[in-house]
Amino acid sequence: MLKTIQFAEQNRQTYLTELSEFLRIPSISTQSDRDDDTARAAAWLAKAMRNAGLEHVTVYETEGHPLVYADWLHAGPGAPTVLIYGHYDVQPPDPLELWESPPFEPVIRDDYIYARGAADDKGQVYIHVKSVEAYLKTIGRLPVNVKFIVEGEEEIGSRNLYRFISANGSLLAADSALVSDSSILGKGKPALVYGLRGNCYVLIDITGPGRDLHSGSYGGGVNNPLNALAHIIAKLKDEEGHVLIPGFYDRVRPLSDEERELLADFPLDEAAWLRETGAPMVWGEPKYSLVERISARPTLDVTGMYGGYQGEGTKTVLPSYAHAKISMRLVPDQDPREITELFEQYVRSIAPPSVTVKMERSRGGKASLIDRDTAPMRAAAAAYEATFNHPVAFMREGGSIPVVNHFESDLKLPTVLMGFGLPGDRIHSPNERFYLPNFYAGIETSIRFLDLLSQAK
Amino acid sequence: MLKTIQFAEQNRQTYLTELSEFLRIPSISTQSDRDDDTARAAAWLAKAMRNAGLEHVTVYETEGHPLVYADWLHAGPGAPTVLIYGHYDVQPPDPLELWESPPFEPVIRDDYIYARGAADDKGQVYIHVKSVEAYLKTIGRLPVNVKFIVEGEEEIGSRNLYRFISANGSLLAADSALVSDSSILGKGKPALVYGLRGNCYVLIDITGPGRDLHSGSYGGGVNNPLNALAHIIAKLKDEEGHVLIPGFYDRVRPLSDEERELLADFPLDEAAWLRETGAPMVWGEPKYSLVERISARPTLDVTGMYGGYQGEGTKTVLPSYAHAKISMRLVPDQDPREITELFEQYVRSIAPPSVTVKMERSRGGKASLIDRDTAPMRAAAAAYEATFNHPVAFMREGGSIPVVNHFESDLKLPTVLMGFGLPGDRIHSPNERFYLPNFYAGIETSIRFLDLLSQAK
Repeated sequence: MLKTIQFAEQNRQTYLTELSEFLRIPSISTQSDRDDDTARAAAWLAKAMRNAGLEHVTVYETEGHPLVYADWLHAGPGAPTVLIYGHYDVQPPDPLELWESPPFEPVIRDDYIYARGAADDKGQVYIHVKSVEAYLKTIGRLPVNVKFIVEGEEEIGSRNLYRFISANGSLLAADSALVSDSSILGKGKPALVYGLRGNCYVLIDITGPGRDLHSGSYGGGVNNPLNALAHIIAKLKDEEGHVLIPGFYDRVRPLSDEERELLADFPLDEAAWLRETGAPMVWGEPKYSLVERISARPTLDVTGMYGGYQGEGTKTVLPSYAHAKISMRLVPDQDPREITELFEQYVRSIAPPSVTVKMERSRGGKASLIDRDTAPMRAAAAAYEATFNHPVAFMREGGSIPVVNHFESDLKLPTVLMGFGLPGDRIHSPNERFYLPNFYAGIETSIRFLDLLSQAK
Repeated sequence: MLKTIQFAEQNRQTYLTELSEFLRIPSISTQSDRDDDTARAAAWLAKAMRNAGLEHVTVYETEGHPLVYADWLHAGPGAPTVLIYGHYDVQPPDPLELWESPPFEPVIRDDYIYARGAADDKGQVYIHVKSVEAYLKTIGRLPVNVKFIVEGEEEIGSRNLYRFISANGSLLAADSALVSDSSILGKGKPALVYGLRGNCYVLIDITGPGRDLHSGSYGGGVNNPLNALAHIIAKLKDEEGHVLIPGFYDRVRPLSDEERELLADFPLDEAAWLRETGAPMVWGEPKYSLVERISARPTLDVTGMYGGYQGEGTKTVLPSYAHAKISMRLVPDQDPREITELFEQYVRSIAPPSVTVKMERSRGGKASLIDRDTAPMRAAAAAYEATFNHPVAFMREGGSIPVVNHFESDLKLPTVLMGFGLPGDRIHSPNERFYLPNFYAGIETSIRFLDLLSQAK
């Protein structure tokens, strides 16, 4: 294993060059005019997997973006199989004007590589490809069996991944799952995520008049879709962050005293966190701590909104149309389908008859709470501690990786969330970046993990 | 006078060709990249005035868009002087995709000329230029003295017009004012507007985080500017159309029983009006009739709003920024400056400290209520009735022409609002149009008005 680690150390420059190539592909899954790019990213990754020595490398076409599968299954009788999951699709980069360098032209500044997808999730997926390659190019074998499944729809609901998993149970059969799509606590401070929020997403379209009207000649006589939208949104969540949709909290599993204590010990520097956000103050549900609010409590956020005149200056219209995009983050045991139903029912009940409301839902995902005391978790903790020479923390993360719930609850796979991002990586934001020492430490941690997993059985 | 009317009838085709030329100039005052076009429109109009035989034609430069002045002052001792006001600037044409033909390429379909500015206000300004020209090219003189002042900032608050009026009292001295920037009741049904709403306009910018954040990792811990904006807007006006800003109604002059009776007799076909708007239903303050709501009551409308991800599909961000444009329509005796102050105070008082709110105001204008029994009003009514062979109606209009209050209250000029638009002209909307029979009838009405005004003394 030491030889393998040394090999990886010697090849850092090559790995970085390759990662930059991967990051140059604008594989934005939500924009249909980028479909060629998502296909190109899948093909690029498949080629990299073949070069790494993986077998059965296949790009599976789907109704949406392709899935990339690869494996190496020669670890011998009794050796466990780990299913490594990641995604090659990325969020849209806009607002573009806030990027210091173009989002798809990776640049290295102060030990960070800047590009859309650097941390979420191309850099983290690539860590495991390189870990496997280091084994195969040094000792010619892996300590465990490995299967990769890398999708191109994580940012838009993973619809075709679920279909593929249902239809290909034996292809993906494994003893545990490994997901690197999260962060550690800070530089040199490793962490294992044991909780993830779920999510669901609804688009609201409100139509009033058949065309934009003169706000003087007609104002006061017909309802304004933008004012109506504001009333609807104001009724979704109060000003302290409490969601007002009836039934929204019914299935929320209360935080146990034990877990609240664990979260209270979590080393979150509120002042540093606030600086990192740039917001005027920390905010949210008064009865919950900041750590709880951003990881263990459900939320509702307007992620985008528009309507009426959006140009320079003023235009005195009573607009015909208003649009809002609403994202909800869920916790155990909220069900995204049920929450979406409750959302739609509620909005229909509060929408005035003076406007027409249409809603469109995106597929959501359930939240996850992972058992911290499994063999793969112990192997992961030991791999982190050996690499970072620092005790590992356990944390809940506010983001969502819906497939984790699927691995845990449906496939009954003990899952490890082994992240290598940093809190300031700006995923989904302008100037996304990935800390290069974590990229290299990630490869070493992965090498150690596969070795420890083979012994942990 | 009959010779003059006949001359105008014989030259309709020429007038239409000239009007089309005027409409081709995209003189959008709110967009600074159109400054060349507003200047071009002013120069075009000045040339047309010179061709009409007007004198002292001058394009006055201002800090904003230029003003066009012209006169003819040889009506003899004792003849009254009328100041004719209009504007050559237009509203932005967007949303462009809803226009059936390009907004600045005038097209004639079914007796209407379609173009931005056709009815508001180029077509109506041009009526009086042609009326004067018909007199000068037939009998060589006008029955009254005439002064024209045509501005390029009506759609953005007329700031430089007011400055010019203050600085040029004697240049603009007159016995009455004539404004054609309104509508009649319907085809063949003339009307004189005696009430106009005032207006004011505020832009709101809300900033939360310093950048767009991941809505999962940060959601619940910082306030979302779009949610905060929705709460603020929902508190500006209730769902029945009642404005909630403290003090907003304090100076509203109650509608007298007499005026409510007059407005109740107003021949507004609600079903036809609703069809014209395309809205699902008539809406507004329950205690007031539709006519009252759209002309005699103050209102507040969001005319534009945006923030966060506005592209296709979904993006899970907690956005940094939100923007709203708010227009208020005022009635006597609300003061736009005071209302803007009340608005800003109130928004500051309800804005949470978890976001930063900035506001920017546009110059507003006061509402007007005009005495219906003045010599110019009687002359106008008679001119309409002779031309249309139909009794004239008196109406209040929901739109704003701030300068009318200035003429009436500050300069003490009896003012006539002699409009030739139709309710379905879609001013400020896509497919703005002007009914050509009204363009020609307008010229005839103007010719008769100038003649009757000379006798009305």
